[in-house]
Amino acid sequence: MKNYKICIIGFGAVGKGVVESIFLKKEMIKQEYDAELKIVAVGDSSSSAISDDGLDERLLIETKETKGNLSDYPEFGGNLDGKDILDKIDYDILIEVTPTNIETGEPGKSLILKAFEDGKDVVTSNKGHLAINYKELVVSAQKNNVQFKFEATVAGAMPIINFAQETLNSCNIESIIGILNGTTNYILSRMTSEGSSYINTLNESQELGIAETDPTQDVEGIDAACKTVILANSILNIDATYSDVDVTGISDITSEAIDLAKKDGYLIKLIGEVSKKSLKVSPRLVKQGSAYDLNGTLNMATLKTDLAGDVTVVGKGAGSLETASSILTDLINIIRLK
Amino acid sequence: MKNYKICIIGFGAVGKGVVESIFLKKEMIKQEYDAELKIVAVGDSSSSAISDDGLDERLLIETKETKGNLSDYPEFGGNLDGKDILDKIDYDILIEVTPTNIETGEPGKSLILKAFEDGKDVVTSNKGHLAINYKELVVSAQKNNVQFKFEATVAGAMPIINFAQETLNSCNIESIIGILNGTTNYILSRMTSEGSSYINTLNESQELGIAETDPTQDVEGIDAACKTVILANSILNIDATYSDVDVTGISDITSEAIDLAKKDGYLIKLIGEVSKKSLKVSPRLVKQGSAYDLNGTLNMATLKTDLAGDVTVVGKGAGSLETASSILTDLINIIRLK
Repeated sequence: MKNYKICIIGFGAVGKGVVESIFLKKEMIKQEYDAELKIVAVGDSSSSAISDDGLDERLLIETKETKGNLSDYPEFGGNLDGKDILDKIDYDILIEVTPTNIETGEPGKSLILKAFEDGKDVVTSNKGHLAINYKELVVSAQKNNVQFKFEATVAGAMPIINFAQETLNSCNIESIIGILNGTTNYILSRMTSEGSSYINTLNESQELGIAETDPTQDVEGIDAACKTVILANSILNIDATYSDVDVTGISDITSEAIDLAKKDGYLIKLIGEVSKKSLKVSPRLVKQGSAYDLNGTLNMATLKTDLAGDVTVVGKGAGSLETASSILTDLINIIRLK
Repeated sequence: MKNYKICIIGFGAVGKGVVESIFLKKEMIKQEYDAELKIVAVGDSSSSAISDDGLDERLLIETKETKGNLSDYPEFGGNLDGKDILDKIDYDILIEVTPTNIETGEPGKSLILKAFEDGKDVVTSNKGHLAINYKELVVSAQKNNVQFKFEATVAGAMPIINFAQETLNSCNIESIIGILNGTTNYILSRMTSEGSSYINTLNESQELGIAETDPTQDVEGIDAACKTVILANSILNIDATYSDVDVTGISDITSEAIDLAKKDGYLIKLIGEVSKKSLKVSPRLVKQGSAYDLNGTLNMATLKTDLAGDVTVVGKGAGSLETASSILTDLINIIRLK
């Protein structure tokens, strides 16, 4: 039985999902992959919990939920920041799930580069650094001979990067087109079914916790644009960065425009497109009843391939445990190759 | 660079697709996987072509298409049967693409078992032996410490087995439900759009080459039932065989029934369902606009998972090169693990 010491930096919804999913799946991983996972450190923006003997998954979540931080984790709580944690502890795999920062990629970028230089494998769900520094990160991972995985960055629980790289590895992927942001899909679906205005629907989505208090990254297409950059680099081998994407969000879409489309058998959806010719996120007319006719926060993507024709995947684009499932798949794939 | 000697038994549409796809992708496989593929033998039901130095992919297809057999392949043509080919030649991987035989599983079953006993890896697209002897085949592969892959047996180019086993490996798959046969989906879609009778639509499908001259395996649900057995065994770890499936085909579906459904917003589709509780293939009412509302020969499947929620794949269920893409993916995955 091999042992793997896991360090998790970032303890919001996704971080908690990762801890919960490790709790749920550690027995399965022992049995099927002959590997024992031990969480030796967790850090959020202001606190930490560290133990070389392993932390208790349920107690980590309970401490964060009842105390609001990790410094109150019995015996092993503290206030180290991410970099200090990586300096101090002995670990094998970093799970970097800090918030996406599309301006600088920090703090995720520095944490990941440090982990690579220390010879550690990394799994991330953070889009910021990948959207602006994809090549630098991937080259550093290669140089340091470590594994770097990021399935969860695009479309949460819906597999697409591993799907293209592994399950379709006989095919050349010529383009990818799809609905890559769940929040905007929810807003547009509700505007279509209710005939409501953009601003009222946004407010309702915020009340339901589907849209964030500052909804800019979702509604202005920034989140979807980050995903097109990651797909362009990882699946189509295009050396692209965030500034290469032509981005239009949904904040100018009126209920009248949606009604007009509806009368002609169309819907308005925020579509991301990735091809050698174009990296684009914009609202587009799609046919009712087509593969793009998805309600709620679902995501979908159609991969155009040379041998297999079009292959489409549909799945949940967000959710704590759902996104964690992609991180855990990456973790298992790292272990399998060791 | 590692060399792999490939033996292909079966040279119908799928076999030709495999040869064509190797021709198209051998350079990519050299570059990306540091592996050289060489087809050293191809056999069909009555003829063969064998050369330890490798056969020419284009000449193989041209010979079969112009002469109707392989015995006229210049210099290396002959009349060995499958078993004699395996006895005579030196090879690494068998691609078994003989026709599905749901009564005995032959000749595929004996060929595969012989290959296993000789220590060879096997890829197959043949559903017959897997639907009736899944366990025997898998146990033999394990005992002989060889790899056995069969992505192409279910839904042609649409990835599902590798998708579940690898891309969703963090999840427990609780059930699979979907459209697993393209021919019947084509017939039902046409009956719905044209209001035509079952028998007229079947005849039209036969003229177009979509339905076979003897359409029994497709229209009576046998083909879809074989696929549910393979999914039950490979993804849900259920020890099932063909006789465990509750099967109803589409030959009793009338245009009146389809019309009635249509008026209420429903469609009739041939649905395969796999769960611990039930293995079933039957015509069912599905909602217009739902994930099952697919036209033509497309296949789809929704996998219900514990962590990632529902994940759906849609793709081409048949086609020579499309099905070959799944076989080539299996071949690449065998090479990657060597």
